[in-house]
Amino acid sequence: MAQKKYEHIQQEAYEANMQLPKLGLVLFTFGNVSAADRALGVFAIKPSGVPYEELTPEKMVIVDFESNIVEGNLRPSSDTKTHAVLYKHWENINGVAHTHSVYATSWAQAQKSIPIFGTTHADHNTVDIPCAPPMSDEMIQGNYEYQTGFQILNWFKENNLSYEEVEMILVSNHAPFTWGKTAAKAVYNSAVLENVAKMAHFTLSINADAARLKDALIKKHYERKHGTGSYYGQQ
Amino acid sequence: MAQKKYEHIQQEAYEANMQLPKLGLVLFTFGNVSAADRALGVFAIKPSGVPYEELTPEKMVIVDFESNIVEGNLRPSSDTKTHAVLYKHWENINGVAHTHSVYATSWAQAQKSIPIFGTTHADHNTVDIPCAPPMSDEMIQGNYEYQTGFQILNWFKENNLSYEEVEMILVSNHAPFTWGKTAAKAVYNSAVLENVAKMAHFTLSINADAARLKDALIKKHYERKHGTGSYYGQQ
Amino acid sequence: MAQKKYEHIQQEAYEANMQLPKLGLVLFTFGNVSAADRALGVFAIKPSGVPYEELTPEKMVIVDFESNIVEGNLRPSSDTKTHAVLYKHWENINGVAHTHSVYATSWAQAQKSIPIFGTTHADHNTVDIPCAPPMSDEMIQGNYEYQTGFQILNWFKENNLSYEEVEMILVSNHAPFTWGKTAAKAVYNSAVLENVAKMAHFTLSINADAARLKDALIKKHYERKHGTGSYYGQQ
Amino acid sequence: MAQKKYEHIQQEAYEANMQLPKLGLVLFTFGNVSAADRALGVFAIKPSGVPYEELTPEKMVIVDFESNIVEGNLRPSSDTKTHAVLYKHWENINGVAHTHSVYATSWAQAQKSIPIFGTTHADHNTVDIPCAPPMSDEMIQGNYEYQTGFQILNWFKENNLSYEEVEMILVSNHAPFTWGKTAAKAVYNSAVLENVAKMAHFTLSINADAARLKDALIKKHYERKHGTGSYYGQQ
Repeated sequence: MAQKKYEHIQQEAYEANMQLPKLGLVLFTFGNVSAADRALGVFAIKPSGVPYEELTPEKMVIVDFESNIVEGNLRPSSDTKTHAVLYKHWENINGVAHTHSVYATSWAQAQKSIPIFGTTHADHNTVDIPCAPPMSDEMIQGNYEYQTGFQILNWFKENNLSYEEVEMILVSNHAPFTWGKTAAKAVYNSAVLENVAKMAHFTLSINADAARLKDALIKKHYERKHGTGSYYGQQ
Repeated sequence: MAQKKYEHIQQEAYEANMQLPKLGLVLFTFGNVSAADRALGVFAIKPSGVPYEELTPEKMVIVDFESNIVEGNLRPSSDTKTHAVLYKHWENINGVAHTHSVYATSWAQAQKSIPIFGTTHADHNTVDIPCAPPMSDEMIQGNYEYQTGFQILNWFKENNLSYEEVEMILVSNHAPFTWGKTAAKAVYNSAVLENVAKMAHFTLSINADAARLKDALIKKHYERKHGTGSYYGQQ
Repeated sequence: MAQKKYEHIQQEAYEANMQLPKLGLVLFTFGNVSAADRALGVFAIKPSGVPYEELTPEKMVIVDFESNIVEGNLRPSSDTKTHAVLYKHWENINGVAHTHSVYATSWAQAQKSIPIFGTTHADHNTVDIPCAPPMSDEMIQGNYEYQTGFQILNWFKENNLSYEEVEMILVSNHAPFTWGKTAAKAVYNSAVLENVAKMAHFTLSINADAARLKDALIKKHYERKHGTGSYYGQQ
Repeated sequence: MAQKKYEHIQQEAYEANMQLPKLGLVLFTFGNVSAADRALGVFAIKPSGVPYEELTPEKMVIVDFESNIVEGNLRPSSDTKTHAVLYKHWENINGVAHTHSVYATSWAQAQKSIPIFGTTHADHNTVDIPCAPPMSDEMIQGNYEYQTGFQILNWFKENNLSYEEVEMILVSNHAPFTWGKTAAKAVYNSAVLENVAKMAHFTLSINADAARLKDALIKKHYERKHGTGSYYGQQ
């Protein structure tokens, strides 16, 4: 019998997943979102390959941070282990999203970080959006989705990036992953990333020598949204 | 009087055809889908030039694998003979789709196979999406649509491609054809192809030297969806 | 008092104009369509600058082939004289459409004819879609819209093009004009042109050396839709 | 208690803001529009970070031309000071709009003015759409949004541009601002700018050497809409 104690994250994960087609970020089932409850040590994630129009909150699968299925009759997303690794090692995130959105995925396929060209980007973070390099054959042939999580963690560590400041990454030849304090925030980040990826592509098409944003402007825009004296939004 | 025995494939073909405008794959009537019944030795196909909003299941024309009209008052799609040739020679397909979707058609017009740049592609097949060369003048001036079928068959044979693994092709200067176990799967493949074609185009715009996916990753992604130990989807 | 005798072309022009926003061919009021009645020697055309959502059949202005307003309280489209010139000199057209659709207009701004790269194009005509050169300062400073009509007529004459076979043109630095046997056909041609313009742009992005369609295929596709032995559509 | 005397500009600002998502000009809350009443010396502007679906006329914040909040419980748009500066110095505008629309923003990121390539552009103004250079570090670190207003004013002054003829600008590395006699006109200009930006990008992709519009045509198109003998639209 389904346990009531997971209903809130199932509902949260359901609503976040349903935003993906609404925001134009997925074709068919090429995406998944999860929502975690740190106290319970689990997350709710989309079942694998189920069309969005057939999703219900009850169908969300409950998984712990070691990738064990805790509750649910359906098989969880094939990317579940990547979600689990991120939750386990990054203690302040409660939502993870993965899409194959067109422009972000194209940058990942091009194996290029997305240069910070404007304030739309700087409103969200202060660095080029990182693109983790292709995984080694050993990582791929082994526990692939689990290793994908480590590829992300390692790239952040090697490049001194903070997962609390930069809530998105491209995995080379694959596609983007995003995260945040909530599942809704993770999805929001997926949409922002797609928008930034699209504009960076057009920017380079218009001017192949386009310059990165100057430091003063990067700092200003990020701080007006996220600094201690932030004045964007309502509080 | 219309025979009840074809109703199921007429319904299947009707529903599959109606997906084309919904998925943004066609302008006006520039596309057609068919659904076959192997036991009956026939397929149901869209009538030629009839707008999607006027389609009904009853209007689907019943044709055999030699391209003879078996039932129906309307003229079948002008591409009917291509469908018939594919059904006749490829015994395990029951659906064929043809569109002039924008990005896939642009690759066909560019006479380029679509390089395998990412896992979205590798989730569906392990090779560059083949582009059959332009047909000879003799083939064009002869029984054109019939020969288009052979152009596809021959290209698969010459390149040792399996139609059960690679369910899509571009015909140079023309447009894509896709197929599958069902008409719905053929349409699904048309949408995937368009998506992959779009991202491959952007990938090369971002990085003209973008590298093909490494073999280990191609194998991994394809097998997690299609291998014996597949773990994508619900069984 | 409004005369009943123009109601049929007002209705036809109204319906054709309303297709422009539906087909994504116009922003705001940047387009207009007219429908002619040869026996009455007049055409009905969109009033200038009126938003599509406020259009009604009665608001269509009746104009003769010398550009005189015959009936209507509103000012006709600013492009009216171009329509009138085309009707006057090309006796077998009864509809004219003008849009600033994005891709076709971009080709016009680039001052390039659209190369015939595929069968989508060849299904409609057998030549590169012509781009008339920029008009002389004298033509522009004079009776501009009237001269735009002659710019089109002259380009067809100089290049031995038949307006019955090629139902579309780009006017350099301006935008496309299309026409046909009916206003609905003119609008259909605008949508086809936009589609062809889009794919030709992507084709060249993918392969800067893309080859024009071979003659045998041009001929075949055009004839299967338009030749004496045509077999596309329902008769 | 809310004062009735601001209701008309709150309503105007509300309606204009709601056009932004409808016209596809904004993602999430990345845009804002204001409507001024010159007699009252104030303008109504979107509250910061509030989703469009939660907006109501009452939520519009009333601000004076020195950026002081006159009425409203919500924090006004973070770009409020830029609006205030423009209203204060340009006496004949009553509406200002700011978006991060994709193509216009890409030109701003590329730090390029948009060349006048066609009549769609010339119908609205007679010059390249100006791109103000990046602001100095001093301006950014100081009163940033206030200085953004001066960056715009100064660029117009230095280049002898008239804000009544050219109702739009790109701010380098940031995004476009537009204005007009009404808030609705400012939004209209944002949509026109996005459309022109898109076509200019495609024009250069098709022909890297595309020529600017010839002077005679620039003059003609602008005057038929805006000159003393204008004949576009109804009056």
